Amino acid sequence: MKTLSYIEPGKIDVLEKDIPKLSADTDAIVRLVKTTICGTDLHIIAGHTPEVPEGLTLGHEGVGVIEQIGDSVNNFKVGDKVIISCITACGHCDYCKRQMYSHCADGGWNLGHLIDGTQAEYVRIHHADNSLYHIPKNITDEGAVMLSDILPTGFEIGVLDGHVQPGQTIALVGAGPVGLSALLTAQFFSPATIIVMDLDDNRLQVAKEFGATHVINSANKEDAIKQIMEITNNVGVDVAMEAVGYPTTFDLCQQIIAPGGHISNLGVHGEPVTFELNKLWIKNISLSTGLVNTSSTPMLLKTVNAGKLEPNELITHHFNFNQILEAYDIFKHADDNKALKLIISFDEV
Amino acid sequence: MKTLSYIEPGKIDVLEKDIPKLSADTDAIVRLVKTTICGTDLHIIAGHTPEVPEGLTLGHEGVGVIEQIGDSVNNFKVGDKVIISCITACGHCDYCKRQMYSHCADGGWNLGHLIDGTQAEYVRIHHADNSLYHIPKNITDEGAVMLSDILPTGFEIGVLDGHVQPGQTIALVGAGPVGLSALLTAQFFSPATIIVMDLDDNRLQVAKEFGATHVINSANKEDAIKQIMEITNNVGVDVAMEAVGYPTTFDLCQQIIAPGGHISNLGVHGEPVTFELNKLWIKNISLSTGLVNTSSTPMLLKTVNAGKLEPNELITHHFNFNQILEAYDIFKHADDNKALKLIISFDEV
Amino acid sequence: MKTLSYIEPGKIDVLEKDIPKLSADTDAIVRLVKTTICGTDLHIIAGHTPEVPEGLTLGHEGVGVIEQIGDSVNNFKVGDKVIISCITACGHCDYCKRQMYSHCADGGWNLGHLIDGTQAEYVRIHHADNSLYHIPKNITDEGAVMLSDILPTGFEIGVLDGHVQPGQTIALVGAGPVGLSALLTAQFFSPATIIVMDLDDNRLQVAKEFGATHVINSANKEDAIKQIMEITNNVGVDVAMEAVGYPTTFDLCQQIIAPGGHISNLGVHGEPVTFELNKLWIKNISLSTGLVNTSSTPMLLKTVNAGKLEPNELITHHFNFNQILEAYDIFKHADDNKALKLIISFDEV
Amino acid sequence: MKTLSYIEPGKIDVLEKDIPKLSADTDAIVRLVKTTICGTDLHIIAGHTPEVPEGLTLGHEGVGVIEQIGDSVNNFKVGDKVIISCITACGHCDYCKRQMYSHCADGGWNLGHLIDGTQAEYVRIHHADNSLYHIPKNITDEGAVMLSDILPTGFEIGVLDGHVQPGQTIALVGAGPVGLSALLTAQFFSPATIIVMDLDDNRLQVAKEFGATHVINSANKEDAIKQIMEITNNVGVDVAMEAVGYPTTFDLCQQIIAPGGHISNLGVHGEPVTFELNKLWIKNISLSTGLVNTSSTPMLLKTVNAGKLEPNELITHHFNFNQILEAYDIFKHADDNKALKLIISFDEV
Repeated sequence: MKTLSYIEPGKIDVLEKDIPKLSADTDAIVRLVKTTICGTDLHIIAGHTPEVPEGLTLGHEGVGVIEQIGDSVNNFKVGDKVIISCITACGHCDYCKRQMYSHCADGGWNLGHLIDGTQAEYVRIHHADNSLYHIPKNITDEGAVMLSDILPTGFEIGVLDGHVQPGQTIALVGAGPVGLSALLTAQFFSPATIIVMDLDDNRLQVAKEFGATHVINSANKEDAIKQIMEITNNVGVDVAMEAVGYPTTFDLCQQIIAPGGHISNLGVHGEPVTFELNKLWIKNISLSTGLVNTSSTPMLLKTVNAGKLEPNELITHHFNFNQILEAYDIFKHADDNKALKLIISFDEV
Repeated sequence: MKTLSYIEPGKIDVLEKDIPKLSADTDAIVRLVKTTICGTDLHIIAGHTPEVPEGLTLGHEGVGVIEQIGDSVNNFKVGDKVIISCITACGHCDYCKRQMYSHCADGGWNLGHLIDGTQAEYVRIHHADNSLYHIPKNITDEGAVMLSDILPTGFEIGVLDGHVQPGQTIALVGAGPVGLSALLTAQFFSPATIIVMDLDDNRLQVAKEFGATHVINSANKEDAIKQIMEITNNVGVDVAMEAVGYPTTFDLCQQIIAPGGHISNLGVHGEPVTFELNKLWIKNISLSTGLVNTSSTPMLLKTVNAGKLEPNELITHHFNFNQILEAYDIFKHADDNKALKLIISFDEV
Repeated sequence: MKTLSYIEPGKIDVLEKDIPKLSADTDAIVRLVKTTICGTDLHIIAGHTPEVPEGLTLGHEGVGVIEQIGDSVNNFKVGDKVIISCITACGHCDYCKRQMYSHCADGGWNLGHLIDGTQAEYVRIHHADNSLYHIPKNITDEGAVMLSDILPTGFEIGVLDGHVQPGQTIALVGAGPVGLSALLTAQFFSPATIIVMDLDDNRLQVAKEFGATHVINSANKEDAIKQIMEITNNVGVDVAMEAVGYPTTFDLCQQIIAPGGHISNLGVHGEPVTFELNKLWIKNISLSTGLVNTSSTPMLLKTVNAGKLEPNELITHHFNFNQILEAYDIFKHADDNKALKLIISFDEV
Repeated sequence: MKTLSYIEPGKIDVLEKDIPKLSADTDAIVRLVKTTICGTDLHIIAGHTPEVPEGLTLGHEGVGVIEQIGDSVNNFKVGDKVIISCITACGHCDYCKRQMYSHCADGGWNLGHLIDGTQAEYVRIHHADNSLYHIPKNITDEGAVMLSDILPTGFEIGVLDGHVQPGQTIALVGAGPVGLSALLTAQFFSPATIIVMDLDDNRLQVAKEFGATHVINSANKEDAIKQIMEITNNVGVDVAMEAVGYPTTFDLCQQIIAPGGHISNLGVHGEPVTFELNKLWIKNISLSTGLVNTSSTPMLLKTVNAGKLEPNELITHHFNFNQILEAYDIFKHADDNKALKLIISFDEV
């Protein structure tokens, strides 16, 4: 089968590999129908994640059809079309029993990271019962790919951890796919004011279409802070979501948070940040971080199926798997190409 | 009347002032029976809080008897013995309606900070209905002083914000009065393991007597971290409470927090800290900060009245108000004197 | 001044009374601009509430202008236009400190119940600071009247107590003004499926326009239950809201509740209900009851001001105060008149 | 092997059966070391549960040693000593993903109810990974049996669902094993006042030893209510737990509940109750019911291991399995024999 594999820092290629086989009674083999590329894949290629073995198939998102299934899998059968969760969950370790699937003792984020992933014609999914999901009837295959990672990440780590409530004022720093997912899912809870910041005006325009009540180009950080303080009558925002991952974007969040507010950190950070506890100890704030658990996937599937959000809005480009190197090229220059999420389709058998 | 007043950085003295009068129908004038000194008073004297006006009467804790009462005060009458809360709450601003009395639009931490405080024979209390508490019958006057600030601070900002649960493993960095208050009140929720760290062996001994299951002298930070990882099977702690206020003590907390854990910041910080989001973004942690709201005071009064904790255990020294300069001297060198909380008594009239 | 007063069971009339005066420093005198009639007023007239004194001015909802204000009131000044909350809250009793204003030791539901109410040219409001609200700029006077009682009741007792969550299936029994308020505010949390039941097809039509995904005329209870079980694949609903107040409507809720579900009781009941604990003990359900606290009013004002719901949709009829007996007549036969909420306007001075 | 089996209504006997074999890769075969008898077993024998097939081995509690293990079980190996949970959980159905193991699509309460149970030398446990627990080192085998059902039932359905908080006043109706388990575990949260009611003075004496602050023989219900109102200054209790299962004991709870209070229903009811919504609609109460999920077992194991409660206190009698009919006889007349939980031991191989 064909795979998109990580060769070495700076280099990926399409490699032929054997189709994976069941290795345990709880595995499934899934034939991919649709996959996509994540910003994290670019980090891996850049060599920021030394734990990724050379030669690994990339990708942790996708929709496919079950080709083989282990005897102990109960929720699925051969032929079922499924969403592949970016998080593998055994369902019986201490973390899984607390719904912290992100830290599963025999799972977590493994696909396209520690084991071969979904940018391939076939993928092996461990603990299939807790790591795959049926697709409800009103959700398209392409929309379903957004449920693998991006929507649950924005929802769980941004919105649920931030306890967004009706009538609140929230701010989002970063309008990439994860930030926009937080923007879309925050609206499940009817905040009154949603301020989105980014350096790219196209993304801010998209944010506006997706429901932002205010957008601010934060190239000038001091000015952005000033604008937010004006919007909020100098109180600051109830929830600030950091969806970029730099000290400066984190700083923006800590400068605009209201007393009693919450900072949800969605960004993947490469270095420590300066945290102004000298100003914030007295402000009764809270803060949260996290890798997605995908524990909200069943809830999200119901909302998407009911038309409460339209995941296809996040998709800007379409490719066939034989164009995947070109797709990576487009995604690497997402801003120039006004790219959010790309869909990579496999030829149907 | 006699007061202990802040003269200028580095200098306090006993000053004579006029007895305060009612300034609004919601005020009360309280004759002090017992007061105490807080670590924050030392910060003020050191000049760290430039907002404090020279000549101000210090003190934000105490027990007294109501001498005069405004017409609009309903909960109290002349002659009632009351606990003076360190936080003044109007009860009707946006923050008070959310029980965030710490940020009351017409209150918050004012006593001994922005207005004359409780280290005086008399004090004026604004918004008396929401800023004073009756003393239940099983609580002594001296024990009640611990309810002005120290116990609600440890309980609310350390324990409640940390969501301490039965069976958890918690760690406390700093065994001063606030840290020990968190230690005592954490036990309301029956954690299985309580690790206390400090640089002072006497305080660690007290912590042990107060319920710590493990104590560690953290003079060698790396070694302390190693010991905690051994105690927790390399998982880390569910809740870490920072009760000191330095970058290094904050760092200790972030090094030992388990995936899914919570850092409660109790410390008053004078400078920013380095926050290792590069390690912690993926650990699904949360963090909280805060000035006490004293919203838990009614709950705490019930627990203390029922004998669930003994606040007098926090008291190590007794003085009369005419010895208050000597008391300050002892408190300034608390470690040498094995001092926790001192009680300053006023002559009963 | 003119008032609509309760004379004796079965009889109301327009009576002349003296304009009320301030009785405490925390009072306000409000000149009414708009008021309305509540189903509860009909219960009072029917004689179901013997605690209501004969001669009392009815009404507990309204918008007006402050004419006089006590010296201890801080949030308002003469000339402010305000929403009168149906619940009076002192802000400093044990219940108020827990935001249970409904059970305020010196307040609760007093207006038009134990003291003269808002169906009059003037009304005295005790504890004005915690019992009145400013009207944000995007809310009309008539829309604001819906914030006195009906919207917070539906929201707090139906939706918040029911913990409505994105993607859930909820059912509402009763599409009168309170039920419809729950329907509107439930949508703040994006449930996937909303089933509304009533005996009146017009109200069901309104429910459909207000966002119900399914409506069922429950004249045949067994058939209604069957339909709900079909909609929910025999699981039942996550949240069932009872907004009528009879044993049979309560029974409908307990028959359709899913394992792990919640029954929110909004109805005012005149007799006990049969509660099938023999079937429900094993279903891990929860249930809640309550009189509105109006603690959510600030949150609701923000959502309405932001256009997240349109309270004017609840208003079907308009009268001047000199037509109030006619208005009562229309409201008494609400079904025949397709009446939901009526607005009674006072001549502007 | 020997089993205690249900023959027909009114009749049990010791029957010989084949040792069970693995039927799925997720099963375990456990050799029993200790088991016990539950009040539910008496209900089965009385014929109240027609779903129980004649010939079934009874029992849903116990400690044993794993003799055989399926290939897909990861948490356990042959030779491990384990607690058998009364609830079987597959870990991957919709209910299990919400930690509602009680309603597991392929589990729930099956043992000794729908499939052969633990009053036998061997038992087959389905979904072993989520239905068995390792025994921490400080817990005895006999104490561990209390973790199969009784302690998690009291804790989850009584205490956690009741949200018991420090300083509260709680009341427990029924001091049998489940009620006493709620009494013991309620103390994890430090309520100030714990009132226990029962008809049996011996059980009330035990309750006193287990931490009740007040005990009341509720033979005279009106008098019991009066006493509680005196204890609570006519306010009522914050949490009332029903641990019996009759209309009259439920009524006692609804008569004594404070405004804003919670009724936790632990009792197994055979008929509907009269629920006074006419009095309670206005009291802002909540109520919960449920079959235990055993989702709290990991938390409980940590508390018991840390010495926060002593499960062996619940054990009053000891038998060998060859005396099990005699044990049933004692248990059937528990009051006469001052019996709480009996331990049935198997000969060690």
